[in-house]
Amino acid sequence: MMFASDNAAPVAPEVMDALVRANEGYASSYGTDEIMDRVTAQVRDLFEAPEASVYLVATGTTANALSLSVLAAPWQTIFCHRQAHAEVDECGAPEFFTGGAKLTLLDGENGRIDAAAFETTLSESKWLGVHNVQQGALSITNVTELGTVYTPAEITTLATIAHDRGIGTHLDGARFVNAMVALGCTPAEMSWRAGIDVVSFGGTKNGLMGVEAVIIFDPAKAWEFELRRKRGGHLFSKHRYLSAQMEAYLTNDLWQRLAGQANNAGAYLEQQMMAATDYRPLHPRQANMLFGTWPRRAHDRAKQGGAVYEEWLGEHPKAGPADEMLASRMVCSWSTSQEEIDRFVELVKG
Amino acid sequence: MMFASDNAAPVAPEVMDALVRANEGYASSYGTDEIMDRVTAQVRDLFEAPEASVYLVATGTTANALSLSVLAAPWQTIFCHRQAHAEVDECGAPEFFTGGAKLTLLDGENGRIDAAAFETTLSESKWLGVHNVQQGALSITNVTELGTVYTPAEITTLATIAHDRGIGTHLDGARFVNAMVALGCTPAEMSWRAGIDVVSFGGTKNGLMGVEAVIIFDPAKAWEFELRRKRGGHLFSKHRYLSAQMEAYLTNDLWQRLAGQANNAGAYLEQQMMAATDYRPLHPRQANMLFGTWPRRAHDRAKQGGAVYEEWLGEHPKAGPADEMLASRMVCSWSTSQEEIDRFVELVKG
Amino acid sequence: MMFASDNAAPVAPEVMDALVRANEGYASSYGTDEIMDRVTAQVRDLFEAPEASVYLVATGTTANALSLSVLAAPWQTIFCHRQAHAEVDECGAPEFFTGGAKLTLLDGENGRIDAAAFETTLSESKWLGVHNVQQGALSITNVTELGTVYTPAEITTLATIAHDRGIGTHLDGARFVNAMVALGCTPAEMSWRAGIDVVSFGGTKNGLMGVEAVIIFDPAKAWEFELRRKRGGHLFSKHRYLSAQMEAYLTNDLWQRLAGQANNAGAYLEQQMMAATDYRPLHPRQANMLFGTWPRRAHDRAKQGGAVYEEWLGEHPKAGPADEMLASRMVCSWSTSQEEIDRFVELVKG
Amino acid sequence: MMFASDNAAPVAPEVMDALVRANEGYASSYGTDEIMDRVTAQVRDLFEAPEASVYLVATGTTANALSLSVLAAPWQTIFCHRQAHAEVDECGAPEFFTGGAKLTLLDGENGRIDAAAFETTLSESKWLGVHNVQQGALSITNVTELGTVYTPAEITTLATIAHDRGIGTHLDGARFVNAMVALGCTPAEMSWRAGIDVVSFGGTKNGLMGVEAVIIFDPAKAWEFELRRKRGGHLFSKHRYLSAQMEAYLTNDLWQRLAGQANNAGAYLEQQMMAATDYRPLHPRQANMLFGTWPRRAHDRAKQGGAVYEEWLGEHPKAGPADEMLASRMVCSWSTSQEEIDRFVELVKG
Repeated sequence: MMFASDNAAPVAPEVMDALVRANEGYASSYGTDEIMDRVTAQVRDLFEAPEASVYLVATGTTANALSLSVLAAPWQTIFCHRQAHAEVDECGAPEFFTGGAKLTLLDGENGRIDAAAFETTLSESKWLGVHNVQQGALSITNVTELGTVYTPAEITTLATIAHDRGIGTHLDGARFVNAMVALGCTPAEMSWRAGIDVVSFGGTKNGLMGVEAVIIFDPAKAWEFELRRKRGGHLFSKHRYLSAQMEAYLTNDLWQRLAGQANNAGAYLEQQMMAATDYRPLHPRQANMLFGTWPRRAHDRAKQGGAVYEEWLGEHPKAGPADEMLASRMVCSWSTSQEEIDRFVELVKG
Repeated sequence: MMFASDNAAPVAPEVMDALVRANEGYASSYGTDEIMDRVTAQVRDLFEAPEASVYLVATGTTANALSLSVLAAPWQTIFCHRQAHAEVDECGAPEFFTGGAKLTLLDGENGRIDAAAFETTLSESKWLGVHNVQQGALSITNVTELGTVYTPAEITTLATIAHDRGIGTHLDGARFVNAMVALGCTPAEMSWRAGIDVVSFGGTKNGLMGVEAVIIFDPAKAWEFELRRKRGGHLFSKHRYLSAQMEAYLTNDLWQRLAGQANNAGAYLEQQMMAATDYRPLHPRQANMLFGTWPRRAHDRAKQGGAVYEEWLGEHPKAGPADEMLASRMVCSWSTSQEEIDRFVELVKG
Repeated sequence: MMFASDNAAPVAPEVMDALVRANEGYASSYGTDEIMDRVTAQVRDLFEAPEASVYLVATGTTANALSLSVLAAPWQTIFCHRQAHAEVDECGAPEFFTGGAKLTLLDGENGRIDAAAFETTLSESKWLGVHNVQQGALSITNVTELGTVYTPAEITTLATIAHDRGIGTHLDGARFVNAMVALGCTPAEMSWRAGIDVVSFGGTKNGLMGVEAVIIFDPAKAWEFELRRKRGGHLFSKHRYLSAQMEAYLTNDLWQRLAGQANNAGAYLEQQMMAATDYRPLHPRQANMLFGTWPRRAHDRAKQGGAVYEEWLGEHPKAGPADEMLASRMVCSWSTSQEEIDRFVELVKG
Repeated sequence: MMFASDNAAPVAPEVMDALVRANEGYASSYGTDEIMDRVTAQVRDLFEAPEASVYLVATGTTANALSLSVLAAPWQTIFCHRQAHAEVDECGAPEFFTGGAKLTLLDGENGRIDAAAFETTLSESKWLGVHNVQQGALSITNVTELGTVYTPAEITTLATIAHDRGIGTHLDGARFVNAMVALGCTPAEMSWRAGIDVVSFGGTKNGLMGVEAVIIFDPAKAWEFELRRKRGGHLFSKHRYLSAQMEAYLTNDLWQRLAGQANNAGAYLEQQMMAATDYRPLHPRQANMLFGTWPRRAHDRAKQGGAVYEEWLGEHPKAGPADEMLASRMVCSWSTSQEEIDRFVELVKG
């Protein structure tokens, strides 16, 4: 009964098999392995982007920070949601990789940047001259950090505002496939067709061991990215083991299958929680993450039964009335089983 | 017949098995997995260093650059050999992670820093006041980039010079175990007992998929290292898969067995090359790397037969006399077989 | 009729005389001039801080950014007001000099950080572990960017909150003396006695040509500061010309006299504006800066008459009703004369 | 008898007068002053470069480091002489401002980069791929750090090698005018006509209080430079006082007159030293700096008489034979008088 994060889940068996298969004989190192050639072709095909540059790194923080470093200069600012992973959970990696760019925090309900707020911030007269940092990049997250999704139309709106000012756009897609499956759209519709310039295309949270692709639609940025990746220590010598994971992921729809399982588990968990207790969502659940409040007594039973999930809106006070509503973040992964949810909900019911 | 690098080799089967075993159920993420607790205990035990902090990262460049970043401030310089990996092969990663420290290059035969040259450089009167960068750290590599090893006594000499000036010391041990096996010494003798403060303890070139440990003997540096690792994108969410590799490595002497195989293959290759052709070593072969010159005609035969190794001292001129002596770097790995060497030498013989 | 900024004013004659006097014969360079010895003694005496380190730089941005760089590590955040000069007007200098620290923006009326908001921000449970940037420093500005002042008691409250968490404190005193004169307190009461660790002690806006002192009360930070100053290009070879300005400033109460003139001019300007037109202050005027709204028709007359001041709350719309209230920022300097104000107010009156 | 550095000299009276004249009334701040418009026109005219961007900063380290930051990316290296000020005397400022670029040190006699050595370094096969830092910029110093000058033809040779590889070129002209006067050439011949892209045009060592111009011949780099200057704290609010110095410098040939005085003093000092004692030049004296060895007994007499100059090739041993040859660096400035030199030489003679 582990709902703390989708990165607590194991690696999908198809991926582990691919690693074992890749472990035969010698392979050219540092990204020149043959599997990587196939991965690049897969990504270009699936994204309908025959010119895209494709790079693999091992962590989501890296994918985001390196992506932003080719979009924003040190004296620029990156616009993102106040709750963005890049702001809250990366210990300043964007600042490190960009050489000291600023992050300008935007508001918006349910983890989605409000287009009007973005427009207003950009229009403020102070963005003039050398005294301010300059407008550099927009970064959005889909699935958002609060479990909601942007539609392609919503992405297009934000990206258009950015491009109208010459600002590049980044999509933190740590849960790209969860969003894509939830929306029923194509990779292209969620990315370059909607105006995204660089994508962090996540795999680790969706069944890989530790691989994220960075997809750059503008070839002019590619060489700089390669140098930054090496300089950041993120170019793997035994790169074939990254390639093999991503190849398996993109083969036979595994990526979509795994994300579908996670999303379905999320929907089932929410439904069962609502039936079992006074569970009230804090945000619309649109993929595999649930945010909600429920009574302390049910929390107590769940935890005593060994369930693991994240306390939300600050740590829970140690004591309080039994019907006190306390918030949680719960995340389902590709490996979350119905049986596991049922056991959890039994605990909650008491 | 692959002698380009030990990082072209596959993962040792014991390590792959450990990955498969680690792939059961949920595990706590970001380095808090149970396997990591055992790895820390193993390292402390094997290094006889009960207070050591142990961290895992995925690339050697990262291990080096993060290590140096806790030893040298941005306004300091790092002393290293002119041929050091940190200088030559990391695209400026030490500069990036330290925030702009300088590397001061030292000379010395066969890839080993000359102690007198180090002393002289440190003693130059210009290291005064705010006008110069300050003396920051010493970094040595063992096995060196030219295939030789420092003895513990030689390390002690250099580290003492450094410590006498308040300069911290780093050991780039991408091939730590190859050196240790070659020297027949203990991990402690090669590191903290010889005056080393921080070790990059390599695994990737010796049969792992992509794991290096950073071992910090001074606990005061540990928390800063953790923050820098996260900020650099080098803290893995599914960290158990790094831990599992390192645990298998350090179990049942696998690390020493693999390094012994590589070193023995290196010795055998050198011996066979000398018997087969006019092979002349450029540097004493002391572990698993060979540098030498041999006739163009033999190179031609080897390459036509499909052998892969690195041209050395600049790319080989396209044409020249058949007996022209051309240099090579050849590296054996844990997986280099006698049969493979014999096939190669047959080609060389013609 | 120049009210755009106090840095549009000339250099006070006493200061210019001191420069001329300093221009005799040779002087030791890079801060080792004899005048600097006297300046250090003056500052220590006036601040009642015999151990303080005193450094001169030429711009306020430099004083702030270098000060913050010895208080906050790259992986930390600096708490400051949303309107802080360091956030809004330094093109990311704090990020640059700290090596990529973040700025966390705090709210508070009239440019003053709200102590409760600061406490709340610090207490949020997310400031844990390696995933977030760490709490690094507090920076306050006095006179604030909105023309108000913090009392010593208010500074003490904020500094105590910071120190209770091990966070260092910085005072941006670009208008330190204006605040001191307004408060009628001593330099010590406004700084170290109130819990400030490092002060940017401004001179440029108060009659110097271009000198700010950085005063560091903790001697342990001094050497690092010196290296950062040199590395940032901010150590002057002909340093005597900085020293001479600061010496003159601190001699015969010139600093207080100049600030008093500026503050009095500010008070007089506000009083006359209120008498002359429908002038409504946006913030309490407590020193030499005025923020207020007044009718478009009066703005038009003032500008046509050649008056210069800053439009506020965004640029003024080009056209609108004559009685539309439009905001301004007006700043008086040591050189603002009553005659100049009277001429301006005549224009405003129409 | 001060020969330690030309920056120990006072400000030329014409420059001080200009500062006093500039101190009238209000002036627009941050580089928008009217004097600066005239300075830009002067520089463009004198350099025959109507498109050049001209910026003023206050220190030579700043001029160099900012110039290099618009020529070299963080993952590139800057080629310079082993003795370059940027390498030896700036506490890592180039590394800081570029975001961690490397400096690759070149050899060459008498402080001048050897063109063949530069060519060889560039041609080494290792400059390939992402593993190395990339080739970024060439920086030369004229007058060199060893007191010699490059001719326009020599500069052209080096710049052509650089440009052939797409590498930009920087001239550290802290003593630009001393070199120009020594060579009898025009500013254009020493800079853009010889292939220089960005010039640090020194004033401080030649009679200004603290002003260096950065002249950028490629307008595409200008805006980035402006942002980096502000972000580095190097944009002065009361900028008119920088402009006024530079305007006076470039008016009525003052710059050339001052440099001529310094060069002539250098020639006279060398001639008199040779007549007075066993003075042996270490490098050809071509401008205002002398490097040479002379007997300990004469050093003793000079120092006891109060003369100040720099010991060279390391600090002098405290004791030794009277005829021991000890090295010195002596620098003459615009203000060095014949009488002063005569007094010094009398001491030396004994």
